[in-house]
Amino acid sequence: MKTHMKAAVLFETGKPLQIISDIKVPSLSKGQVRVEILYSGLCHSQLMEVRGGRGEDKYLPHLLGHEGVGYVTQIGEGVTKVDVGDKVIIGWIKGQGLDAPGGKYPHQDFLINSGSATTLSEQSIVAENRLVKLPNGFPEKLAVLLGCALPTGLGLVFNELKPQPNKTIAVFGLGGIGLSALLAAKLSNPTKLIAIDVNPDKLALAKQLGATHCINSTTTDPVTEIYRLTEQVGVDYSLEAGGTTQTIEQAFESVRDGGGQCIFASHPSDDLKIQLEPHAFHRGKSIRGSWGGGAQPDKDIPLFADMYFEGRLNLEPLISKEYTLDEINEAIDDLENKKIVRALIKIAQR
Amino acid sequence: MKTHMKAAVLFETGKPLQIISDIKVPSLSKGQVRVEILYSGLCHSQLMEVRGGRGEDKYLPHLLGHEGVGYVTQIGEGVTKVDVGDKVIIGWIKGQGLDAPGGKYPHQDFLINSGSATTLSEQSIVAENRLVKLPNGFPEKLAVLLGCALPTGLGLVFNELKPQPNKTIAVFGLGGIGLSALLAAKLSNPTKLIAIDVNPDKLALAKQLGATHCINSTTTDPVTEIYRLTEQVGVDYSLEAGGTTQTIEQAFESVRDGGGQCIFASHPSDDLKIQLEPHAFHRGKSIRGSWGGGAQPDKDIPLFADMYFEGRLNLEPLISKEYTLDEINEAIDDLENKKIVRALIKIAQR
Repeated sequence: MKTHMKAAVLFETGKPLQIISDIKVPSLSKGQVRVEILYSGLCHSQLMEVRGGRGEDKYLPHLLGHEGVGYVTQIGEGVTKVDVGDKVIIGWIKGQGLDAPGGKYPHQDFLINSGSATTLSEQSIVAENRLVKLPNGFPEKLAVLLGCALPTGLGLVFNELKPQPNKTIAVFGLGGIGLSALLAAKLSNPTKLIAIDVNPDKLALAKQLGATHCINSTTTDPVTEIYRLTEQVGVDYSLEAGGTTQTIEQAFESVRDGGGQCIFASHPSDDLKIQLEPHAFHRGKSIRGSWGGGAQPDKDIPLFADMYFEGRLNLEPLISKEYTLDEINEAIDDLENKKIVRALIKIAQR
Repeated sequence: MKTHMKAAVLFETGKPLQIISDIKVPSLSKGQVRVEILYSGLCHSQLMEVRGGRGEDKYLPHLLGHEGVGYVTQIGEGVTKVDVGDKVIIGWIKGQGLDAPGGKYPHQDFLINSGSATTLSEQSIVAENRLVKLPNGFPEKLAVLLGCALPTGLGLVFNELKPQPNKTIAVFGLGGIGLSALLAAKLSNPTKLIAIDVNPDKLALAKQLGATHCINSTTTDPVTEIYRLTEQVGVDYSLEAGGTTQTIEQAFESVRDGGGQCIFASHPSDDLKIQLEPHAFHRGKSIRGSWGGGAQPDKDIPLFADMYFEGRLNLEPLISKEYTLDEINEAIDDLENKKIVRALIKIAQR
């Protein structure tokens, strides 16, 4: 087992991540598992962390990344859910098993912090309850999606919205969560499935995955267009993963009076508020926030993997570009500029 | 039956109502009932109408008032729910029976419009589905509350919130709806029942009706105080009837993370929005709008009357001042200046 590792480290918000090559890996405490990372995903949450959108960061310097796949090289006291050699999915959503803090990695004369599940490093010390065994035969590259995007996006639909068939549905924001939600929404046989984004490539992808209508919100007002497409009624459901207060507001405005439901997954900067028309609530619109799609990883990951094996979820198009760990800042820039759906960060190959 | 009547008429928003004494009462159409009004209530909605807070008013000139009590003097074709001589409650919430437009009252060389249920006139032409027979023995003066404040305020709690016992509850705004909601909330045995208003007299009344804590929001920030009173957790439920976007926002902020529920009844001006922290939804707060407390008048009015007869609802204090129809503009001013809970407008005595 290697004693040192390479990792992307956030030293200061608003600055690029630094790649540090000789970080010492500490020994394990109770409930911790050491994982050698194969691939990591990259989520809008990391972009917010790096850019300082979560306010003051009390844990600097620290590791980050919250969805990945790797294999277990060591288990700490009390760990029973996984064993050495197991391929595992790392995700931020708590599941069964022991909770534990992340590792404190000694470097030079200070410690680098990490949360209970980080993935942008060659090695990671992860809490048992943030790990689920990789379902047999599930492709490694797609497995990173099982750590965040799929539980959140599919969970948004299957666990929280539970749409009736033959309804109209709009999906705002076609990142990893939005496209996962679109795949799930498609399975409810909507009469209209409307995809909204600023990127023509993502809209083309949404069409390929089953969207019946696409709206480019840089050139067309999505609320006006959704009302036009629904005979001025609005959609039955809107799913929001666009990342801004504006997309949440548009998603709420787009649902119909008398029962229209909006669910949003976005977590904009902490200092921003959404502005909603109070009377819209009286007219029967509702809005909810989703936290990880209400997912229970131990139950949902095998379920979603089975749906993939059955050919019901076309996941391959969700991974748009592969980067190395050294290229992490380029990946973050591409995500910020909405050029990609989900970046795959290749850390190592077994 | 008199052929002419006196009524308060809104000719122009932003101006006082005009009292017109010689309005002709037209004959009845299908589904319409002619009622001789004894008492009318006065709700924040009339204040908004009169002041122009509902935007452009396309029905000027028109009658108004949406809660009252009177007796039936004539029934139109198809009406079976009430008969001549019945004492009835008039309310704006639709119930069983025929729907019908309000009367068009000829005056000079124009018509005065009215909705399906108006009450600030000696006579009123009301749709069958806005009438419920007055439960036997229920006091006439309190009966106006059964047209709007009680179904909305009690319904907010009994039909929509359905609070668990032993919870903490905050009530924002102690008008007719807020005090009714407070009375209902008290019946769930809350560990804390916190009343918030700007008027010391109303706060004293809330205390008398069962509030455990009172906050005068002109001198104390209610959100900070509610967190202080709940060990920084927030309340389990907040009920809002304060009439402004600010009180809705405060009510939402005051509920606890992880399951806190806010229900608001207020309908602020149409051009105003409420500003909410999106991440509060992710942390498990929820907000709903109430439309008439989800009340079904034919079911709920007898039920609420029974609760009054059983001594479980202390309604007398909710009527704070009596005015004549000629004093209607004074009553509206007093309501706007939050001097009164619910005005009673005495139209006639049988």
